[in-house]
Amino acid sequence: MILLTVSKKPDVVLQELITSYETRLKHYISYQPKLLKPSTQSAAGMIKSEESQLILKELRQDDYLILLDHQGYLKTSEELAQMIQKRLNDSSRRTVFCIGGAYGFHDSIYKRADFKLSLSQLTFPHQLCRLVFTEQLYRACTILRGEKYHHG
Amino acid sequence: MILLTVSKKPDVVLQELITSYETRLKHYISYQPKLLKPSTQSAAGMIKSEESQLILKELRQDDYLILLDHQGYLKTSEELAQMIQKRLNDSSRRTVFCIGGAYGFHDSIYKRADFKLSLSQLTFPHQLCRLVFTEQLYRACTILRGEKYHHG
Repeated sequence: MILLTVSKKPDVVLQELITSYETRLKHYISYQPKLLKPSTQSAAGMIKSEESQLILKELRQDDYLILLDHQGYLKTSEELAQMIQKRLNDSSRRTVFCIGGAYGFHDSIYKRADFKLSLSQLTFPHQLCRLVFTEQLYRACTILRGEKYHHG
Repeated sequence: MILLTVSKKPDVVLQELITSYETRLKHYISYQPKLLKPSTQSAAGMIKSEESQLILKELRQDDYLILLDHQGYLKTSEELAQMIQKRLNDSSRRTVFCIGGAYGFHDSIYKRADFKLSLSQLTFPHQLCRLVFTEQLYRACTILRGEKYHHG
């Protein structure tokens, strides 16, 4: 599993928390987080377009792309775990999650996406999305293994 | 606004993040977070019962009690801001939010509650709930003031 995030480096404190979940996660699955540098253009359209190029450059043709998107599908932690299991079963394609930049995704990314997932109906800061997502991916792994972490 | 959380002290790193939002929040509204010590009973029923006593002891008879509950209503950040505005308009009653302990709320708390709010259909660790909620309350204040923080 890969997580692409269009973002500057988060503040040290938040990164420490994210890293703590990433470290645990790597005991369960292969996981590679990667930050993509936000565009320095001034217009929202140009920003989204430039950032879409960065995202597309990271993708292989057959990658299964899941956008973390406010307009995406809401899933429970158990449903997310089932989705992760399905993706793990499909060993022929990499699974790439993506958190967009401050202005969201360019249309070309929506067209390329295989699925859109929403972490909440609330709007989170992008860095908090990364923290919540990493925790959920870890939680999904413990659910799939029947471990005690998740109370449900 | 008051936030009661049945929880041990969070780890230092998470507390630092929560405090950063609390500090900003206090420029907008009166806000008092308070931790209630989790029960040390061993059975889930006893734990919930003991913790319910702690929560009820904090409440005045006319407090408007909002539980942060996985089974509660999902709201967008804009809708949450509107709810906060309504509560601020009702100066006759305090608004008390409450995050329950590891086993959730006792029935007596559900009966006492005026509203149940869900931060996400996903299950979050309780400490992450506190962080997400504090950020959302801050976000709500910036939305109500028409400030730039929230992109929507």
